[in-house]
Amino acid sequence: MPKLKWGLIGGGEGSQIGPAHRLGAQADGHFEFAAGALDHRPEAGRDYAQRLGIAADRAYGNWQDMLAGEAGRPDRVDLVTVATPNATHFEITKAFLEAGFHVLCEKPMTMTVDEGEQIVHVAKLTGRICAVNYCYSAYPMVRQARAMVRAGEIGKIRLVVTNFSHGHHGDATNADNPRVRWRYDPAMAGVSGQFADCGIHALHMASFICDDEVERLSADFASTIPSRVLEDDAMVNFRMAGGTVGRLWTSSVAIGRQHGFDIQVFGETGGLRWASEQPNQLHYTPVGGRTQIIEKGEAGLHEDARRLSRVSIAHPEGFPLAVANIYCDLADAIRGEVRDGLPGAADGVRSMAAVHTAVASARAGGVWMDARPPMFR
Amino acid sequence: MPKLKWGLIGGGEGSQIGPAHRLGAQADGHFEFAAGALDHRPEAGRDYAQRLGIAADRAYGNWQDMLAGEAGRPDRVDLVTVATPNATHFEITKAFLEAGFHVLCEKPMTMTVDEGEQIVHVAKLTGRICAVNYCYSAYPMVRQARAMVRAGEIGKIRLVVTNFSHGHHGDATNADNPRVRWRYDPAMAGVSGQFADCGIHALHMASFICDDEVERLSADFASTIPSRVLEDDAMVNFRMAGGTVGRLWTSSVAIGRQHGFDIQVFGETGGLRWASEQPNQLHYTPVGGRTQIIEKGEAGLHEDARRLSRVSIAHPEGFPLAVANIYCDLADAIRGEVRDGLPGAADGVRSMAAVHTAVASARAGGVWMDARPPMFR
Amino acid sequence: MPKLKWGLIGGGEGSQIGPAHRLGAQADGHFEFAAGALDHRPEAGRDYAQRLGIAADRAYGNWQDMLAGEAGRPDRVDLVTVATPNATHFEITKAFLEAGFHVLCEKPMTMTVDEGEQIVHVAKLTGRICAVNYCYSAYPMVRQARAMVRAGEIGKIRLVVTNFSHGHHGDATNADNPRVRWRYDPAMAGVSGQFADCGIHALHMASFICDDEVERLSADFASTIPSRVLEDDAMVNFRMAGGTVGRLWTSSVAIGRQHGFDIQVFGETGGLRWASEQPNQLHYTPVGGRTQIIEKGEAGLHEDARRLSRVSIAHPEGFPLAVANIYCDLADAIRGEVRDGLPGAADGVRSMAAVHTAVASARAGGVWMDARPPMFR
Amino acid sequence: MPKLKWGLIGGGEGSQIGPAHRLGAQADGHFEFAAGALDHRPEAGRDYAQRLGIAADRAYGNWQDMLAGEAGRPDRVDLVTVATPNATHFEITKAFLEAGFHVLCEKPMTMTVDEGEQIVHVAKLTGRICAVNYCYSAYPMVRQARAMVRAGEIGKIRLVVTNFSHGHHGDATNADNPRVRWRYDPAMAGVSGQFADCGIHALHMASFICDDEVERLSADFASTIPSRVLEDDAMVNFRMAGGTVGRLWTSSVAIGRQHGFDIQVFGETGGLRWASEQPNQLHYTPVGGRTQIIEKGEAGLHEDARRLSRVSIAHPEGFPLAVANIYCDLADAIRGEVRDGLPGAADGVRSMAAVHTAVASARAGGVWMDARPPMFR
Repeated sequence: MPKLKWGLIGGGEGSQIGPAHRLGAQADGHFEFAAGALDHRPEAGRDYAQRLGIAADRAYGNWQDMLAGEAGRPDRVDLVTVATPNATHFEITKAFLEAGFHVLCEKPMTMTVDEGEQIVHVAKLTGRICAVNYCYSAYPMVRQARAMVRAGEIGKIRLVVTNFSHGHHGDATNADNPRVRWRYDPAMAGVSGQFADCGIHALHMASFICDDEVERLSADFASTIPSRVLEDDAMVNFRMAGGTVGRLWTSSVAIGRQHGFDIQVFGETGGLRWASEQPNQLHYTPVGGRTQIIEKGEAGLHEDARRLSRVSIAHPEGFPLAVANIYCDLADAIRGEVRDGLPGAADGVRSMAAVHTAVASARAGGVWMDARPPMFR
Repeated sequence: MPKLKWGLIGGGEGSQIGPAHRLGAQADGHFEFAAGALDHRPEAGRDYAQRLGIAADRAYGNWQDMLAGEAGRPDRVDLVTVATPNATHFEITKAFLEAGFHVLCEKPMTMTVDEGEQIVHVAKLTGRICAVNYCYSAYPMVRQARAMVRAGEIGKIRLVVTNFSHGHHGDATNADNPRVRWRYDPAMAGVSGQFADCGIHALHMASFICDDEVERLSADFASTIPSRVLEDDAMVNFRMAGGTVGRLWTSSVAIGRQHGFDIQVFGETGGLRWASEQPNQLHYTPVGGRTQIIEKGEAGLHEDARRLSRVSIAHPEGFPLAVANIYCDLADAIRGEVRDGLPGAADGVRSMAAVHTAVASARAGGVWMDARPPMFR
Repeated sequence: MPKLKWGLIGGGEGSQIGPAHRLGAQADGHFEFAAGALDHRPEAGRDYAQRLGIAADRAYGNWQDMLAGEAGRPDRVDLVTVATPNATHFEITKAFLEAGFHVLCEKPMTMTVDEGEQIVHVAKLTGRICAVNYCYSAYPMVRQARAMVRAGEIGKIRLVVTNFSHGHHGDATNADNPRVRWRYDPAMAGVSGQFADCGIHALHMASFICDDEVERLSADFASTIPSRVLEDDAMVNFRMAGGTVGRLWTSSVAIGRQHGFDIQVFGETGGLRWASEQPNQLHYTPVGGRTQIIEKGEAGLHEDARRLSRVSIAHPEGFPLAVANIYCDLADAIRGEVRDGLPGAADGVRSMAAVHTAVASARAGGVWMDARPPMFR
Repeated sequence: MPKLKWGLIGGGEGSQIGPAHRLGAQADGHFEFAAGALDHRPEAGRDYAQRLGIAADRAYGNWQDMLAGEAGRPDRVDLVTVATPNATHFEITKAFLEAGFHVLCEKPMTMTVDEGEQIVHVAKLTGRICAVNYCYSAYPMVRQARAMVRAGEIGKIRLVVTNFSHGHHGDATNADNPRVRWRYDPAMAGVSGQFADCGIHALHMASFICDDEVERLSADFASTIPSRVLEDDAMVNFRMAGGTVGRLWTSSVAIGRQHGFDIQVFGETGGLRWASEQPNQLHYTPVGGRTQIIEKGEAGLHEDARRLSRVSIAHPEGFPLAVANIYCDLADAIRGEVRDGLPGAADGVRSMAAVHTAVASARAGGVWMDARPPMFR
C-alpha cells in the first residue's frame, strides 16, 4: 500500500503544532510529507521545509502558491493540514476544499458560524473530507467510551460532566506575555478566550461520547485577572437533543491543574470516567456495582479502541499518537474506508455556534439559548 | 479535667448518625454520654438508651421530657446534639437554647430562612453555642487550607470549584425505596433535594476555606430520574463578597463516584485541592511551581491542622474523627476557649438562604439572585 | 450492656501510643477507662491519670502497684493494655495474665522467642486472652481480603508481596536524635532495628491475609546510614507452610514514602492489593479480568469487613479506628464471642522467631533457615 | 538534514515489536525505512516489506541476503535493527557490526556472557554503535531522574528498589499457550524466564538512574506454576560498585499488575519515584520536605528530559515515543553527537552476566555472587 502524500500549512520552526502534525502524519507510515508552506515569512518557510526533507519545488512561500503548485501536479498531495493562526483557517480550508483537496483543519475551524456553515456546504459539494483536529476524541479509550454508550452498556445517558481546566495562564505578573495575552484580546482571539480555546474540546468530547448534540446552553464567564477582556474561566450548563444534562467547566487560572481535561458520563445503568492525563484507562461502574478499570489493550475492547492502539496492555500511548490516530482515520477515509469517529466540518460549525451562544448567554446573565447553528435547527 | 456531660436527641437504633455522634463525643474523652431521647417511639428510645449505658431516669421518651428533666438537674447535660428528622431541628434547637443548653444541630439547621434567623437571635440572646454539624470542615487538612488562605499563602482568591456528587441514588429501579424517595418528595424534604442534602456541605466548605461569604448565585437544577419532583443534580454558580467566582456541582446520580466531595481553591499565587475520599492530603501548587503534597501530621502545619490530628504522619484519620473534631472544638468552647472554625448558626442560616435562592433561580431559568439571608444583607 | 473496665500501663503524657489506645478503647463505648499506671515516674503517672478522669485510688505509680491494687478489687479491670517500652512487655504481660487479667500487649510481645513461648503457655494455662496489637489487621478491608482468601475467591495463594517502608529515619544529620537513635542501638532495641519495628507488621499481615504461617526465610539487612549498628533496610524472602512464596521489604530510609505499608496477594484465580495510606479500598483482579475497586461499606462484603465499619461507603475510617476494632474484638471475646481475627500470643511468638531468624540469616549471607518458633515445629 | 536510512530484521506481520520499531524510527523523521528482512519465511518477509513501501530489491528473504545486499550498495542503510528471536541476536548483530553497520539490538543482546563480551569487542574494533533497546531508559522523566542523581540533587544514593511485575502469565489454564510457554522452557528461553525477560529492564534502569553498576547479587527464584521449569517470579538483592543497596522484584503471575514497572531511588538528601504506567511524572521528595510532582515539559528540567519531549506539559507521551527517543539518540550519534544515555553493548553484557549469576545464586540457595562480566571485573 503506497504512502499517501501530505502537505502542511503553518507549523513553522519553533511551533508546537508543527511537530505534532508531522509526527501524527508519519508515525504509522500512512503519509509522506511531500509539500509545505510552513511560515508566514516565505523564505523562512521554504528553508525550513527543505531542511525537513521537502523537495525545493514543493517548499512553498505561502499557501496561495502551494494551492496553485499542488493543484497542477499529477502527484499532488492527498491531504492538506491547516495549522495557521485561527483567523485564517476559514479562507485556507475553503480554498483547498474547492480545489479538490482533503483537509484537516486545526480547531477552531472558523471564527463565525456563517463561515462554518459555508465550510460544511463546500465539503458536501466537493465531496472532499474536511476533518477538524479534535484529537482527544481519537484516544483509544475515548473511542471505547463512545462505543460503550452506543452499545447501550450504560443505558440512556442522563448526565455528562466535563472539565478542561489548567493553570498555565494563572500568573498575572506574566499576563503581558504575548503568547498568553492574545488569547484574551478580542482583536486577536475573537469573542471568547478560554471557552473557545479549550472549552470546545470538552464540548466536542461530550457530544462525541454521548453520540448526541448540544441543543441549548446557559453560560457564566469570568475574567478573574481583571486586565483581561475575554474570559479566563467559564461554566456552561447545557442540554442535549436527547435530553442529557451537561455541565462544562473550563479555566486557565486553575493553578495546579496541569492539563485537567476529564469527562464523566452517567447513564441509567452505569457511569464512565476518563481523564486526558491518564488516557489509557477508562473507569466504568455498573449501577450498584464496583468500579472497574478498563485498560487500553485489554481483551474484548470495542473495535475502534482496539484498532487505534499500537502496543500491548499498560504500555501507555499518549497525545501525539492520539493525533496520529486522526491521521489513521484520515488515511482510511481517503482510501475509502470511512471511520465514523473522525470529527468533521459539522463538528466545527457546532463548536462555533456554541461559542457564540455562550458569549451571548453570559452577557445576558445566564439566559438559556439555542446553541445550534442555523443549519441544524 | 472532668468530662462534660452530653445528651443526644434522635440517633435511634439502626441509624447511621447516632453511632457517629456517640463516637464523636466520646472518642477523645471530652464528653460523657449522660442523657438521651433517642427514638420517636418512647419505649424503644428509653430501652436503647439504657442499653447504651444511660441511667434510667435520663433515658427519656421524647425531647420534651428530656428538656424538662435535664433543665431541673444540677448535673444537667452541657451539650445537646439534635439528630432528628430535618423538619424538627428548628423547634428542638430553639427550645434547648432557650433553656440554656449548648446545642449541636445536624444540618440543615432549619427548613426556612426565617427560622434560621430566629435561631441566630436566640443563640445571641442566650449566649449559648449553637453549632451546626458541617463536620467536613473539621478535617485537619481542611483547617490547613483555611489557615493557608488566611495567611495569604495563595494570594487573593480568584476562584473556588467544589463538587459533592455521588451515585447512590442513581438506580431508578430503586427509586421507590423509602430511604431514597423521601429526599425528592417536597412533602418530606422541602424545597430542594440533592442541593439541600449534599450541596450545602460543599457551599459551606467554599465559604469556610475562602473565609468569605456567598453573595449571589445562579442555579441549574435537574431531575434526571423523571419520577422525582425535586432535583437530583444541580449546578450553582456564585460570587462571594470578596469577588471570588464559585462553581458548585452536586449530584446523586453520578454512578461511580462513591463520595465525591472535593474542593479546589485558586488564588493569585497558588492553588489548593482537597478531596474527602483522601482527606489526609492537601495538594498545593505555587504559581509557576510544582504541586506539593501536604500531609496531615507533617512538621510546620498551621495550628488548627496540628491540633486536630491524633496520630503521626500518614496514619489516616477519617470521617468519624472529623465529627470528633467538632466535639473537640465544642468542648473547648464550652470550657471557654472559643475555636474560630466551629460552624455556627450564622452558617446554618446562610445555607438555608442559599438553598431557597438556588431553587428560585433554577425555576427562573438561572437568573442571578442575592443569596444572603435578610439579616446579613 | 454495661461497659467493661479497662486499665492502661504506659502511654504517659506526650506519648503517641497512649491517646491511640484511649481512643481505641473508648470510641465505641465498649470500655470505661478505670485504672492506669501511665508513667515510669510514679507521681507524673498518678497525676496524669487523674487528669484523665481516673479515680485517685486507681491512678497507680507503677505496674506492680496496679497489679496488686486491681487484683484485690471486686470491680477490677477486665482488660489491661501494656504500652510500655519493648523490653518490659514480657514481664508485665506475664504477670497480669497469671493474675487472671486479659491483656492487650503492644508489639513486639517479647524480646526473645523463649519469652514468647512462655506467654503462649501462660495464656493457655490461665485461659486468659493475650492479644497483640497488630492493629493493621483490623482494618475492615484487610478483614475482607482475608475472608476472600479463605472463601477461595482468588484460589490457592501463590505469592504474597508486602512492603512497610518509610523515610522518617532518612536524615543522617538527625541520626543522633534519641527518638530515632535508640531503634538502631542493640542495647535498647535488641537484635533488629527496622525489621523488628515495622517489618513484623508486614509479616503478620502476610500470614493473616493468606491464613498461613511463615516456615522458612532468607534475609538481607543493610545499615544504609553507616553509624547505625542495626539495619535500617531489610529484604526478607520467605516460604509459607502451604507453599506460598513471600517477599517483604521494609525500610526507614525510603524518603518520600510517608507510611508505605502495602500488601499484594496473588492466587491462582485472582490478585488483591491493599495499602495502609488508602485503607478503605481493596483492589481485586480476577485472572484475565479487570481490576475492581472494593469499597469499605459496599453491599455484600464479608461479615468481618461489614461488622468493623461504622459509617457508610466512601466515608473513610482511619488508623485510630483500626485500633478501636481490636478493642471491639476484645470486648466481644471477653463477653464470650471469640472473633477469629484477633491477633494473639501465637502471632507474637511467631514474629519474634522470624526476627531472630532473619537476623541470623542476614549475618550468614542470606542462608535459608527455619523461621518457626520451636513450639510450632 | 537528509533522513538516515534504516533497515529492520525481524518484526514480521503480526508481531508487536515490528510496528514499535517502525514507528520509533520514523515518528520524528530521522530515518527512512529502506530495507528489511522481516520474516523467517523468505517470501512472506519480502512481500510484507514491499507492502510497507520497501523497494523490491531491498525486500530481502533473510538477514544474510540483506547483509550481502546492503554491504554492496553506495546508499546502504545507516542503521540495522535486530528484532529476531532472542537466540539469533548474537550472530546477526555481530555480522552487521563487522560489516560496518550501526546496530540496534533488541534485548537480550546475547544468550551468554561470552557472546556479550564478543559484541563489546567487535563494536570497539569496528567503531560502530551497538545499542540495546532498553527503551524505558529513554522516557524523559527517567532521563530527568538520572540527571538529578548525577547533579547530586538527592545526595549519595543509599538504596534503589525496583519492580517489573505483571500478571499476564498468571493463568495456569493458559500455560500451554505457545506464546506463554516458551518463556519458561529452557530449550527456547535459555537459563532464565521472567528475570531474563523483564527483570533485566529493571536492573538496567537501576544502573542507569543511579549511574552505577551492579557488583554482586543474591537471588531467589520461584516457579509458582508448577509445570514451569524456569522461574515466573524472582527477587534479586544486589549491591552496586558505589555501595548502593538494591532490591529487584519481578513476576509474571502478579495478577492485577498490568505493567508494573517502577523504580524508587533513595539518597542522602532525597528520594525519587517513577512508574512506567504514569511515565510523565516523577515524584521527588527532599529529605524532611514535601513530595513534589515533577511534570514532563515543566520549565527548568534537565537537558535530556527537555530534549526528548515533544509536546507541552501534561500532554502524555507514552511507550512508542520512548522507543522513538532511542532512535533520536541513535540519529544524533550517527550524525556525530553522541548522547551519553544511549544503552550499549556494555549494558547488554552486564545484563547477561546478571542473569547467569542470578540463576546460579538461586540454585545455590541465595548465595551472594559476583555479578560482573569477566571483562569488567
